[in-house]
Amino acid sequence: MIDKNDIRVVAFDADDTLWDNETHFKQVEHDMCKVLEQYAPAETVSEHLFATEMKNMPDYGYGAIAFTLSLMENAIKVTNGKVTGEELLQILELGRSLLHLKATPLPGVTDVLSYLSGKYHLVLFTKGELLTQEHKLQRSGLKPFFEKTVIVSDKQETQYRELYHDLGIQPKQFVMVGNSLKSDIRPALDTGACAIYIPFDVMWQHEVTDDFEHPHMVRIENFEEIKRYL
Amino acid sequence: MIDKNDIRVVAFDADDTLWDNETHFKQVEHDMCKVLEQYAPAETVSEHLFATEMKNMPDYGYGAIAFTLSLMENAIKVTNGKVTGEELLQILELGRSLLHLKATPLPGVTDVLSYLSGKYHLVLFTKGELLTQEHKLQRSGLKPFFEKTVIVSDKQETQYRELYHDLGIQPKQFVMVGNSLKSDIRPALDTGACAIYIPFDVMWQHEVTDDFEHPHMVRIENFEEIKRYL
Repeated sequence: MIDKNDIRVVAFDADDTLWDNETHFKQVEHDMCKVLEQYAPAETVSEHLFATEMKNMPDYGYGAIAFTLSLMENAIKVTNGKVTGEELLQILELGRSLLHLKATPLPGVTDVLSYLSGKYHLVLFTKGELLTQEHKLQRSGLKPFFEKTVIVSDKQETQYRELYHDLGIQPKQFVMVGNSLKSDIRPALDTGACAIYIPFDVMWQHEVTDDFEHPHMVRIENFEEIKRYL
Repeated sequence: MIDKNDIRVVAFDADDTLWDNETHFKQVEHDMCKVLEQYAPAETVSEHLFATEMKNMPDYGYGAIAFTLSLMENAIKVTNGKVTGEELLQILELGRSLLHLKATPLPGVTDVLSYLSGKYHLVLFTKGELLTQEHKLQRSGLKPFFEKTVIVSDKQETQYRELYHDLGIQPKQFVMVGNSLKSDIRPALDTGACAIYIPFDVMWQHEVTDDFEHPHMVRIENFEEIKRYL
């Protein structure tokens, strides 16, 4: 499935692969609904929020700063402008808390990165906001394992091909490890690379896609299982 | 001053070097002050805004999305929460307008890039938000001139050195063209590269720094003058 003699670069997704991220977004969404509970039921607020995020996606992209701006816009619109300044500031601070996440490595991550770092070139390949992702990597303590950090606005085939070009490698020398079939696994496979799929408990609605199998993909449940394949 | 036989890569800053940007930020700030004029004088609102931006800088970084979030926070705080939902939505849309700027190339830019593109490798090297900068480059029509686009959260010596490493060049083979002494000129010179300084009419307060001269820097007034040196 993965011929480890071919592999030179192992790339890792960041959020919900190396550390927990989506859980914190869900918690902020929950807390925001609490702030607005006198105006509308949580379900309504959440539905409107997702619609607002999708509307803003082409302009704002992915990330905690974009999310905060959508939280604010949604709070004003879903309350028909009745939300108070104080409530908006509470929501603003909820969003800001996402910029200070500890980004604690998930179980097995540090051990596996340490195991791999002598054998392969390790790259962090993540989509989102530049500063937000850089800061999480710093706080996670995992930065020293990576020879290169590449942060992009989206992870599609184009960005994978650019990465191979920048690294001076062929697709078959590359394996992508991540929790998103849509951003990590599918585009890596479609460019001819290998992929290790490690699902995370919580998935952002936007990232959900149909499940599939592929001869160059392995599916694992625990990070430690990576050692079996690499 | 610049030995063009050494130069292999010419890198360009984007905002206020290739296209006008700061003028639009100033206009949005002006329009935002109008929206809030019943609450506080424009001068007070602007002063508070700059303080809010500086407070948020470590978390949000540079860019139109970050700016919009600071506009919203500032509007709530400077009016002691009295700003209405409708006014906040007006301010939100003012911020969003910055994400749709035409990014029309400044005079001489297209001609000079065309002239240089056969002779050197051209790189766009800009700080800011990933998607915001990518979109402006697309809209400017200048993307085909650049072999590589590098967007970073800040432009200091570290980022310049990483760029040389990624490009596989020595500092003396690199010349940076830009309008900011702080982000474009000083760090390029300090790493041993050359620099072409082209001041822009309007400068964001945060970028203002003391003027200086340097043997590897040339100062020009019009973009076309680049042809004299390269």
